[in-house]
Amino acid sequence: MKATILLAHGSSDANWCAPFFELEKSLLQSVSNSHNVKLAFMELSSPSIADAVAELSAKGCSNIEILPLFFAAGRHLREDVPKMLAEIEQTYKEQNTPLTLELKPPIGQSQAMVDALKNTIENAL
Amino acid sequence: MKATILLAHGSSDANWCAPFFELEKSLLQSVSNSHNVKLAFMELSSPSIADAVAELSAKGCSNIEILPLFFAAGRHLREDVPKMLAEIEQTYKEQNTPLTLELKPPIGQSQAMVDALKNTIENAL
Repeated sequence: MKATILLAHGSSDANWCAPFFELEKSLLQSVSNSHNVKLAFMELSSPSIADAVAELSAKGCSNIEILPLFFAAGRHLREDVPKMLAEIEQTYKEQNTPLTLELKPPIGQSQAMVDALKNTIENAL
Repeated sequence: MKATILLAHGSSDANWCAPFFELEKSLLQSVSNSHNVKLAFMELSSPSIADAVAELSAKGCSNIEILPLFFAAGRHLREDVPKMLAEIEQTYKEQNTPLTLELKPPIGQSQAMVDALKNTIENAL
């Protein structure tokens, strides 16, 4: 089964996290049942990436894409997150339930999002 | 003259900042000359909000909107940034060059951006 983790930065502030849970809820209503989508936070908030992977693995998902809900890729996405993903993969390998975690480019850098951002700002000016 | 500061979080990582400078450049080519648009960073990167305000004020702008390039409003946008803006306003008031800085909601929470994000994720799934 295909699975995607939507990865947000995370914050100790629940107000910051709320829109991401809204987005997850909205997406769960529109995607097919055969595709598992799960929100996770890199730090400070729950569920963590490891929590989300555990839930998806328990459902039988072993190919999981990580789609970062970030505007841009900095050190977090180039260093911290790849390290976290490698550690999680290693854990599952040692448990004889191997899985692959594929980190995608940040959503904010997709052409559709760059265009939408530009249009929205132009309209706001 | 109208002026808008596009406010990004900022990062010590130049790779993270680069797409925001690209966005600023692209917007400067599409908006009218009578509307000043300037990128600024909340922390860790230059120009700061104070730098951007100084440049816009020198051009004669005294009504400046601050448009946060954030997905969601957490403590930064509810506490830190309003405090920064109030301090800057106070400084200009004391210099007898008063100006108003209006903080707008985060761009990521505009309906157009929420819709674009949802569509882009659905296409990426």
